[in-house]
Amino acid sequence: METTAWNLDIGATVSGTTGTGFRVWAPKAQSMVVQLVSARGKEERVALLQEQSGYFSGMVNGVAAGDRYLYLKDSGTGRPDPASRFQPDGVHGASQVVDPRLFTWHDKHWQGIRQEEYVIYELHVGTFSREGTFDGVIPLLDYLVNLGITAVEIMPVAQCPGRRNWGYDGVYLFAPQNNYGGPDGLKRLVDACHAHGLAVILDVVYNHFGPEGNYSGEFGYYTTDRYRTPWGAALNYDGPCSDPVNDFFIANALYWLHEYHIDTLRLDSVDWIFDLTARHFLQRLAEEVHRHGQMLGKRIYLIAEYDANDARLVRPAEQGGYGIDAQWNDGFHHSLRTLLTGETTGYYEDYGQFSQLVKAFENGFVYTGEYSAFRRRRHGGPSPEVPGSRFVVFSQNHDQIGNRKCGDRLAASVSHEQLLLAAGTVLLSPYIPLLFMGEEYGETAPFHYFVDHSDKQLIEAVRRGKAEEHASGACTGDPPDPAAESTFLDSHINLTLKREGRQACILKFYRRLLALRRKTPCLQVFDRNSIEVKGFERQKTLAVIRQTETSRVLCLFCFSDAAEEVM
Amino acid sequence: METTAWNLDIGATVSGTTGTGFRVWAPKAQSMVVQLVSARGKEERVALLQEQSGYFSGMVNGVAAGDRYLYLKDSGTGRPDPASRFQPDGVHGASQVVDPRLFTWHDKHWQGIRQEEYVIYELHVGTFSREGTFDGVIPLLDYLVNLGITAVEIMPVAQCPGRRNWGYDGVYLFAPQNNYGGPDGLKRLVDACHAHGLAVILDVVYNHFGPEGNYSGEFGYYTTDRYRTPWGAALNYDGPCSDPVNDFFIANALYWLHEYHIDTLRLDSVDWIFDLTARHFLQRLAEEVHRHGQMLGKRIYLIAEYDANDARLVRPAEQGGYGIDAQWNDGFHHSLRTLLTGETTGYYEDYGQFSQLVKAFENGFVYTGEYSAFRRRRHGGPSPEVPGSRFVVFSQNHDQIGNRKCGDRLAASVSHEQLLLAAGTVLLSPYIPLLFMGEEYGETAPFHYFVDHSDKQLIEAVRRGKAEEHASGACTGDPPDPAAESTFLDSHINLTLKREGRQACILKFYRRLLALRRKTPCLQVFDRNSIEVKGFERQKTLAVIRQTETSRVLCLFCFSDAAEEVM
Repeated sequence: METTAWNLDIGATVSGTTGTGFRVWAPKAQSMVVQLVSARGKEERVALLQEQSGYFSGMVNGVAAGDRYLYLKDSGTGRPDPASRFQPDGVHGASQVVDPRLFTWHDKHWQGIRQEEYVIYELHVGTFSREGTFDGVIPLLDYLVNLGITAVEIMPVAQCPGRRNWGYDGVYLFAPQNNYGGPDGLKRLVDACHAHGLAVILDVVYNHFGPEGNYSGEFGYYTTDRYRTPWGAALNYDGPCSDPVNDFFIANALYWLHEYHIDTLRLDSVDWIFDLTARHFLQRLAEEVHRHGQMLGKRIYLIAEYDANDARLVRPAEQGGYGIDAQWNDGFHHSLRTLLTGETTGYYEDYGQFSQLVKAFENGFVYTGEYSAFRRRRHGGPSPEVPGSRFVVFSQNHDQIGNRKCGDRLAASVSHEQLLLAAGTVLLSPYIPLLFMGEEYGETAPFHYFVDHSDKQLIEAVRRGKAEEHASGACTGDPPDPAAESTFLDSHINLTLKREGRQACILKFYRRLLALRRKTPCLQVFDRNSIEVKGFERQKTLAVIRQTETSRVLCLFCFSDAAEEVM
Repeated sequence: METTAWNLDIGATVSGTTGTGFRVWAPKAQSMVVQLVSARGKEERVALLQEQSGYFSGMVNGVAAGDRYLYLKDSGTGRPDPASRFQPDGVHGASQVVDPRLFTWHDKHWQGIRQEEYVIYELHVGTFSREGTFDGVIPLLDYLVNLGITAVEIMPVAQCPGRRNWGYDGVYLFAPQNNYGGPDGLKRLVDACHAHGLAVILDVVYNHFGPEGNYSGEFGYYTTDRYRTPWGAALNYDGPCSDPVNDFFIANALYWLHEYHIDTLRLDSVDWIFDLTARHFLQRLAEEVHRHGQMLGKRIYLIAEYDANDARLVRPAEQGGYGIDAQWNDGFHHSLRTLLTGETTGYYEDYGQFSQLVKAFENGFVYTGEYSAFRRRRHGGPSPEVPGSRFVVFSQNHDQIGNRKCGDRLAASVSHEQLLLAAGTVLLSPYIPLLFMGEEYGETAPFHYFVDHSDKQLIEAVRRGKAEEHASGACTGDPPDPAAESTFLDSHINLTLKREGRQACILKFYRRLLALRRKTPCLQVFDRNSIEVKGFERQKTLAVIRQTETSRVLCLFCFSDAAEEVM
């Protein structure tokens, strides 16, 4: 049993002796009743008391972990708790009381790893192992350690509709997906990662709620129509009644740190988090998360997906920044990919110049104020002073594969040698590398977009949306149906492939590069002064010199089809 | 004749010898024709050439200043030029060619005044003088100088629908209002101000277009539906095709500096300028305006109206700020006013504590993260390091008077002594003071909201909107009809009042305070270290000590009804 200095102040909280406390933000309610069904089938209804601030709360005796409940607002239909810790029957079913003290952790001495040491492996729980569960990941951790991975990034696990989803349709943000193994499953996985010396990054979605099973709008003012997102209503971070919304998402972040021992949060598309108040939600989030990291004596980070190429996000607060620790660098990916594949559709129309990859190495952002034809406006700002450890780079990730019409990986578009070149460019770059599961041995399975909604109209909307998104895709034939189970099954990786032939060769190369990165001091130093970049335009060759007092490395990346002479 | 290093690259540009060039941003057009009517009545149609970037342009021989023109997009109805320099017949009529070189300036040696010296007098051209014109203001400048004013702030003059408008419904942002006297009238006024040693602040509206006569949407992508404003569509500062929109408003700012010798721009409600790119429009605007100020060898400033209490706006770029020079401080006003009047309706519900005025003196912002009942959320951020010269304060302004149901001034709500106390609190504050025309002698005329639209539905909408806004107003009786001419006429100030009685006494007090402020070195120093503030809560008395090496002043502001003893 473990106690932490922090407690979630919403949801169901099991008290040591007196029962379970319930608390829900419901400013739209006149009355609120919690309807309980004990594990033994006993039913009970208890009215909660209205606090001044729009919350309802109350203590119910005899309720314990495993009991289930729904909220009845103004005597209406029973709804799950927006802060439910577990949805055993999915997004429409009852919430289940979870007692976080009942899990036995073994990672007391784990303190996290330094940001500079992160080598990230992004995985989707449902398709990574044969079991498609948290527990299914555990036996494969030895393999990841042996590969040279230091941090496992788990695609979002907040309860989504159905059993098949990337995770970005989550609606119960405190409830780990039921068919992945729920709360205990996730805790076992994190505990095992720490036992293996692996940090755990959890992908969290703070820019919208999923489209099915979200009843939070019946309770409170979670969304606003002042801004638009690609997925519908924006979250209400800065309008009337927005304090409890901010508090809800901050609490969610702290919850993962305290109750699940998560090391780092990956924030999905923060471009769609609108907050025009004097203190942006992300700034407050960074302050709180870092403060709690100190409290916990752990190295805890925030890594954001962000499209604006604005270094404000990763600058410290003293410099007017939001204090986020790192951000994904799509420009690096697009430069690298187009150089290898020559693709020009969609956002790739802005890329394809060798000089752009050189700039990605020199500067971080590729677009720093230049006109973008795809965006039809100037894009980005400078980032010369930002250390390389603040950028996460990749040659593939779930989006860059899964948003392609046929979900095909880079291996399907380039030669074996190019694939190794891509790996080298990422792994020896002066940035934090991220691999997408299976990439390390040239997995041949696609990674498709898949959903499992019960709402037929919604399924049709997803199908139409994806078809439009794919209209400009390069691949021939029909794209797979996102709602079909086969689309999900086809997306499973097959780790047995790695054992022989071309795949074994690729894997060996990844291992060697990661070992090199790990063992060479200058490859783990990220300040701009220790790095010298030179592009040989005619030879399409990039030279990168990295040095510290004790080591010096020259990396040459040749993107030419012919043998070239440089220097 | 005068030449500057800068030229407006849109609109009609008279060339010395060859005729007049026309250039318009019209990405929505397939073809563009300029339809000309010379001053002698000769008609002509000339097709413009399409540039690559969505602009159409061409040179037409024989066209000179005074000739009129309309644009015909795709052979459609003739429309005024979105960058028209003059709309002699109003928002629906033809544009007129203006040659800025034809005006003779006399202010060659004018270099502007230091920001710390600004004492601002806000006036509405239509109601300030009997004539209601730019020329009507000129004979009154001696009076303003004698009062102690150093800067005249002119409410917006961009061409509005009709003849009566506050100015915030402007649709031709480069065209000074026709019935005020048009381009030459404004130039004469600015020239006269400079001859009197007065700086000129022009109020400009970069957050929306007025509701009538705006045809710019037929030409280009000026607006977006991604964000909402209280006045309809937001301007497109960050979406596809937004570069020319940014350029349009930047050009407008530079145009006022170069062609009209304006010293400072007052930016209306910048809260509604949405720009989530890496380089906010306001940041770029500040950079450009300051750069051109240096080019012109003049002290040029930007003062913004901003509601978010976020010091980012006025911080320098090196600290992650936008580099705006100063902002209006509504919190100061609300604290002061509620202390005097006890009002609690609308946004005044957040005010009324003596300690809030103390905080306004100590800190600048009153709300620095506290919960605001009116906004139903936390509001504002800290501003301790921001020097006082970055805040503009007032006890009255056009909004705080004109948005009241009966347009009544502070004098209608408080005693003579309180009025003087309000004056002292503003004029001896460690901030930049702003007076609203007539305030200095206790003008008794109201300042109503008035419009002169030709669109009947629009008039009805304005009437309804105002009635709702006034629903919580304190004054009894019906509010006046915004569309009635009498509402406008009633809002004229009557400067003859100032000559005797109570009014003469008030005026004398203002003059003495401003003279004191001018002559006492420590009253013109604004860094936080030179100011000591102490509030005596029980005695409702504010003590402010200001000192420099050569002078020291103790100001006592007593808000108690009784005699009080402090210190």
